[in-house]
Amino acid sequence: MKTLLTDLYQLTMAYGYFRSGLMNHEAVFHLFFRRNPFQGGYAVAAGLANAIELIENFRFDKGDLDYLASLKGDDNKALFDKEFLQYLKKLKLTVDVDAVPEGTVVFPQEPLIRIKGNLIHCQLLETILLNSINFPTLIATKASRICYAAKGEPVLEFGLRRAQGFDGGLTASRAAYIGGCAGTSNVLAGKYYDIPVKGTHAHSWVMAFPSEIESFERFVSAMPNNCYLLADTYNTLEGVRKAAKIGIKLKQQGRHLAGIRLDSGDLAYLSIKARKILDQAGLKNTHIMGSNDLDEHIIASLKEQKAKIDVWGVGTKLATAFDQPALDGVYKLGAIRAPKGKWAYKLKLSEQNAKSSTPGILRTRRFFNRNHTAIADCIYDEQLGMPENTQIIDMFDPTRRIKISKTSKSEHEELLHPIFKHGKNVYKIPAIIQSRQRTIEQLDLFHPAIRRFLNPHSYPVGLEKNLYELRTELILKAREMAA
Amino acid sequence: MKTLLTDLYQLTMAYGYFRSGLMNHEAVFHLFFRRNPFQGGYAVAAGLANAIELIENFRFDKGDLDYLASLKGDDNKALFDKEFLQYLKKLKLTVDVDAVPEGTVVFPQEPLIRIKGNLIHCQLLETILLNSINFPTLIATKASRICYAAKGEPVLEFGLRRAQGFDGGLTASRAAYIGGCAGTSNVLAGKYYDIPVKGTHAHSWVMAFPSEIESFERFVSAMPNNCYLLADTYNTLEGVRKAAKIGIKLKQQGRHLAGIRLDSGDLAYLSIKARKILDQAGLKNTHIMGSNDLDEHIIASLKEQKAKIDVWGVGTKLATAFDQPALDGVYKLGAIRAPKGKWAYKLKLSEQNAKSSTPGILRTRRFFNRNHTAIADCIYDEQLGMPENTQIIDMFDPTRRIKISKTSKSEHEELLHPIFKHGKNVYKIPAIIQSRQRTIEQLDLFHPAIRRFLNPHSYPVGLEKNLYELRTELILKAREMAA
Repeated sequence: MKTLLTDLYQLTMAYGYFRSGLMNHEAVFHLFFRRNPFQGGYAVAAGLANAIELIENFRFDKGDLDYLASLKGDDNKALFDKEFLQYLKKLKLTVDVDAVPEGTVVFPQEPLIRIKGNLIHCQLLETILLNSINFPTLIATKASRICYAAKGEPVLEFGLRRAQGFDGGLTASRAAYIGGCAGTSNVLAGKYYDIPVKGTHAHSWVMAFPSEIESFERFVSAMPNNCYLLADTYNTLEGVRKAAKIGIKLKQQGRHLAGIRLDSGDLAYLSIKARKILDQAGLKNTHIMGSNDLDEHIIASLKEQKAKIDVWGVGTKLATAFDQPALDGVYKLGAIRAPKGKWAYKLKLSEQNAKSSTPGILRTRRFFNRNHTAIADCIYDEQLGMPENTQIIDMFDPTRRIKISKTSKSEHEELLHPIFKHGKNVYKIPAIIQSRQRTIEQLDLFHPAIRRFLNPHSYPVGLEKNLYELRTELILKAREMAA
Repeated sequence: MKTLLTDLYQLTMAYGYFRSGLMNHEAVFHLFFRRNPFQGGYAVAAGLANAIELIENFRFDKGDLDYLASLKGDDNKALFDKEFLQYLKKLKLTVDVDAVPEGTVVFPQEPLIRIKGNLIHCQLLETILLNSINFPTLIATKASRICYAAKGEPVLEFGLRRAQGFDGGLTASRAAYIGGCAGTSNVLAGKYYDIPVKGTHAHSWVMAFPSEIESFERFVSAMPNNCYLLADTYNTLEGVRKAAKIGIKLKQQGRHLAGIRLDSGDLAYLSIKARKILDQAGLKNTHIMGSNDLDEHIIASLKEQKAKIDVWGVGTKLATAFDQPALDGVYKLGAIRAPKGKWAYKLKLSEQNAKSSTPGILRTRRFFNRNHTAIADCIYDEQLGMPENTQIIDMFDPTRRIKISKTSKSEHEELLHPIFKHGKNVYKIPAIIQSRQRTIEQLDLFHPAIRRFLNPHSYPVGLEKNLYELRTELILKAREMAA
């Protein structure tokens, strides 16, 4: 059970609300990120399936409660009293959860998950929701970038050995597949999540035999239908020549060498040479897989150098999102109300405008033009509504505005979908291959400039005019109060 | 069960060995890393407890075997045959495992784990061992660096929300504690691993009440014995003044405000101001906790600026090892033998000397001078032995040599300890607090210059002379063969 997979302060706050008479207050929280990862132009949402599982199984069992009862404060007295532990024991989540489906293209400030309901329930979900969404979204985004660099050629995820914990590996494999990868080396991820698994042999295989050629012969004889030969254990091009000899023999037997793999050295130079060796041996259909600390930038550079790699194995840099190993997702209070009261809109003030939160009960609407290309996203408040004629205002540059009128748009889509209603699951998690397909289709809805690695197009996302004005008003009020 | 937590190629190689008559060959593999992480001068080994658990529970259950039976190759035929699956079903590990205990200070090239036994068993363990050791070693090292910057003041790990999967968070909390942290916010890690858990409240607590002062009053009344007040929801120094008022009231009641927390803004400036406010209110014992994207470099800089923070909350940058989110640990074949045969020493050749592996059945011996300071580590081969008078030769600069003679050293220690013998666990995992203590004691054995962040001292690690010469000879032979 993972109910205790939370920061202690969620429990001390829950206890505080319980003791302070706020146990029946309701709240709205939004989970969103502030900056696109990897200095990119978008993110791909992932991790919802995991969040759903955690919410569905959210209960404090005896072991959890015993542990919480054992915790002491600084004065060595029990941290929580019996009444509160009794409350936790009986606690059943009754929140409403709305979220963007996995594989949705999303942008900073847009709620990926919205939780509405009992304040304590909302607070207790904060950490597991952030943990469930932040990392998979990061990896799905990274994978989509790598696949973009590979221009449609298959990208395989090989990161388990360097992943951050076993679940870091499993989660990465799943998210990488949603982001567009063709498969993983991680067998358990294959079993759990129905992802294609791939892999052939390592250098140790070659070293286990008296000679490289013998190791190749043995491998193709043992694995007739899965033959990628690793060519660089001793001398790469010699290895390729030996693999080509094996390929010719297989052909004579009516079989086929699926590919070779290059795992070190100058992959541009070596792959071009290897392609020639294979082609001259009549093995035009034998693939060349490249691996060795690849990421989207190295793949793009190899492509520019006309490298002849056509299958990409990507490990560490993908599974850990090496150049930015965390998404800056946060979970902020938008509104609160006492039982039978009115919603009071809330924001967290910051000296930086970018770190002040947006008050309200938010949704996001995405507008398309007549060519079905997305033109702007509008974050609006459910109570203020989404007028037919309004403006979308950039939160950080209010002179950047987009007019929305009944006639200027041809269609729109609501990004948040209902997931739980009053604690009950109302959402069917799609098969993972559908989430992967969704990523591909979603990315096609945008101008390709958002995918550019260097200075990508900044897709317009803003607040609906009334919400923008309300936010500004609340910030000014809060600053006045705080001064 | 996590037996399938492996790369597919381990299974295809196992199948290959099985089909090629190598199923009773024995091998020796070493798990080591090539470069100290974070451009530092050392690493702290961690993750062994997890590795032991995985080895102890290593078996293919029906679900695993059914899944493997379902896998198809490129020609759509079954990847593995029934005989092999039957073999896996009956497989019980019989390997010998030696490893460095958690909390040991280690250096590049030194085996952290050595596996000796059936070739297939060794191969099947590769990925889970790498996954078990790489990430915890990285995080324990990061934590020890952050604790070093904090100069003995408590460092709390707060990284769960940005961690790489739920287990990324759990593993990070455990390893951070071994590396020297004083506690974690992660309640499940506290429960599982017996780590102190810490935490108070978030901005949302303050926002949930009509005013900041009311939120503080409610919190100290609900949580009499665990009061760190978060001061920066609206205006930091105003928040501190309000917290000080609360502190004075508590004092009048014979109670005590444990601390305040600053989570944004200029922590140097704000903490100095906050300290003055608290001191003037007679709250000299009220701590100031700092958090907000801290790492060892920012803490060191804050220390230089005389920041008055005395408790450090470190999240994302620690739990993901943000500036280098993966250790480059590898698992390399050192020797192989046929049943009843002699050991054949093996190495993986690389154009870069640093990436060529070391052959043999390796151990590491650490030598100390008369002041009990470690002076050099010697990697030696069990069969070649460790002569009483020899030289330790740097692998990458053979002119760098250290003479070892019976008289020049006063003591030494073997780094590898027996963990499994013929598949049976012979090691008692120490309590986690002992592993944490070991880290502290181990670091005290070295000259402090290895802990320096910029250009740390490069502690001497080399090969015993006979082993060095054997390695050179085998590299030259392999290059000749490969050319």
